[in-house]
Amino acid sequence: MIKILVDCFGGDHCPEAPVEGALRALKANPELHIGLLGDESVLKAQLEGKDYDASRIEIIHAPEVIGCDEKPTDVVRLKRDSSMMKGIILLRDNDDVAALVSIGSTGALVTGALVRLGRIPGVIRPAFCPLLPSMDGGLVGICDSGANVEVTSAHLRQFAIMASLYMENVYGVKSPRVALLNVGLEAEKGDAVRQEAYPLLRQTEGLNFVGNMESRDLLSGKYDVVVADGFSGNVLVKTTEGTALELLKKIKKDIYSCSLYKMGALLMKRMFKEEKEFMNYQNYGGSVLLGTSKVVVKGHGSSNAVAVEKCIEQAYRMEVSGLSAQIEKEIAKYEHYED
Amino acid sequence: MIKILVDCFGGDHCPEAPVEGALRALKANPELHIGLLGDESVLKAQLEGKDYDASRIEIIHAPEVIGCDEKPTDVVRLKRDSSMMKGIILLRDNDDVAALVSIGSTGALVTGALVRLGRIPGVIRPAFCPLLPSMDGGLVGICDSGANVEVTSAHLRQFAIMASLYMENVYGVKSPRVALLNVGLEAEKGDAVRQEAYPLLRQTEGLNFVGNMESRDLLSGKYDVVVADGFSGNVLVKTTEGTALELLKKIKKDIYSCSLYKMGALLMKRMFKEEKEFMNYQNYGGSVLLGTSKVVVKGHGSSNAVAVEKCIEQAYRMEVSGLSAQIEKEIAKYEHYED
Repeated sequence: MIKILVDCFGGDHCPEAPVEGALRALKANPELHIGLLGDESVLKAQLEGKDYDASRIEIIHAPEVIGCDEKPTDVVRLKRDSSMMKGIILLRDNDDVAALVSIGSTGALVTGALVRLGRIPGVIRPAFCPLLPSMDGGLVGICDSGANVEVTSAHLRQFAIMASLYMENVYGVKSPRVALLNVGLEAEKGDAVRQEAYPLLRQTEGLNFVGNMESRDLLSGKYDVVVADGFSGNVLVKTTEGTALELLKKIKKDIYSCSLYKMGALLMKRMFKEEKEFMNYQNYGGSVLLGTSKVVVKGHGSSNAVAVEKCIEQAYRMEVSGLSAQIEKEIAKYEHYED
Repeated sequence: MIKILVDCFGGDHCPEAPVEGALRALKANPELHIGLLGDESVLKAQLEGKDYDASRIEIIHAPEVIGCDEKPTDVVRLKRDSSMMKGIILLRDNDDVAALVSIGSTGALVTGALVRLGRIPGVIRPAFCPLLPSMDGGLVGICDSGANVEVTSAHLRQFAIMASLYMENVYGVKSPRVALLNVGLEAEKGDAVRQEAYPLLRQTEGLNFVGNMESRDLLSGKYDVVVADGFSGNVLVKTTEGTALELLKKIKKDIYSCSLYKMGALLMKRMFKEEKEFMNYQNYGGSVLLGTSKVVVKGHGSSNAVAVEKCIEQAYRMEVSGLSAQIEKEIAKYEHYED
């Protein structure tokens, strides 16, 4: 039995989406036990009338609510009875708890994980690694996508090692092709951090570093992992998301401008739906936080039940893959300077 | 008469695209005079049999060729007889020459412009400002998109002022809405540079600063100017380009997977072509270099004749708008520290 905590407060559709997602995950996976974090009475009401295996689910009362504008450090310090912070502390203090899934505040989750949960030995900074679909049918992991807006080349090397192990162990990608996000392909491109990181990545044994990547090639299918600082990684992921959505929206609008198009679109209705689903990052799970001492998965704030289910499934697979031990072993091979 | 130099060597389709683009621009604009830079015999051969007003075009012999792997500093130092470097020097030394258009090496052009041409008084760093289409039918300028991979908050303020004046004076956008590219909307988001830049932008009189922008909203139509460091600005522009291209390519491929889709697509053929054209950044001109003492426009390396024509037209409009004088005047209002 693997026990995963689900933070049910935070996110646009709470507590419905987290609770519903948890029930779906429970049904799909008989080895799963779930702890729902949040206000007990609200969660009880949400579960009422639902069909589920009560022996594998429990409610953990966490009544405090995190406001939208609260500073992450304040949340960590003052809101110990919020669903998120209580989840982090329970995860830290209980050997039988494997992971936490949350669709709440990203900043609070990162700060909380750093301060209260801690890191895998040797890891300087945990980093987010969301997945995007690539055009050859595979997935590409982007690490970091926002946990660290300022980085050194040593950070980037660790992000590369962690994300490569993640794609290999959790998604079965053999020898993942790792690229460094940069403004050009040549080794000397970019700022000082990138210029330092390039040879470091080259020299990292066991890492299939294929060189720099220009962001226009993200979805090309040529890469399995893209290494970036959290600022430009965030820009990379959100621009992809935004462009796809805006373009599909524009196509939809333009269809209505002409009756011929409307007829054509009728025949292609299923295809357009599929394209939208293909580009919907929620279908590929959450943004896992790599490098924390236990598994933490962050789902998008707008996650629906299916998206939350995917996050739970992802957390489960991370735990059974033994990823943390792998990361500790590989990271130990190199000297990384704490900043 | 406004005289513009066109660098005819460099780019994927040279010298055809630059020469053809120049001839198109000449036809469209009777006030234009063009100097074609490059190997004289090759350019003569290219012009042969073409119909043009010979009194408004001249060939300037520049036989040296810039190799793909040459370092920008070497190009600037050693290749004074290349079409690009000769163009920059002629632009600097001749009052009657207004602008240079090039689709050659970006690095060489930036370095050459900085070292040989110089800046508008007060400008710390020139910056690129390409345009992308926004979904409300307008345009959004991104400044910087790659000239400066490392910046300070003072640079970002200057980019904002220059790009805002550009959109206002050259594209007629009244009081352009200027946003700072960041990882979240709140003022305290981002790294130290962004945290410093936010209040600076707020305090800049005459600037319609609307706050931070998350990259997923780039095409939303809510912004006219996005201010960024050259690294993340480059990621922003190229990710938009790449995502749109890959998505349209995928749609095209998927259409062939089903005969119903093929029929539908037949009815929508014109629309798909229009979407592709809409997202084709070449249709919106080149990436102008803001802050140099004279007008420099950089077209994409893959530019065709129409794209080069747009770049020439853009250079012309920048010159007649008196943008440089405007930039000098506005920049002078603030103390900017040279780095």
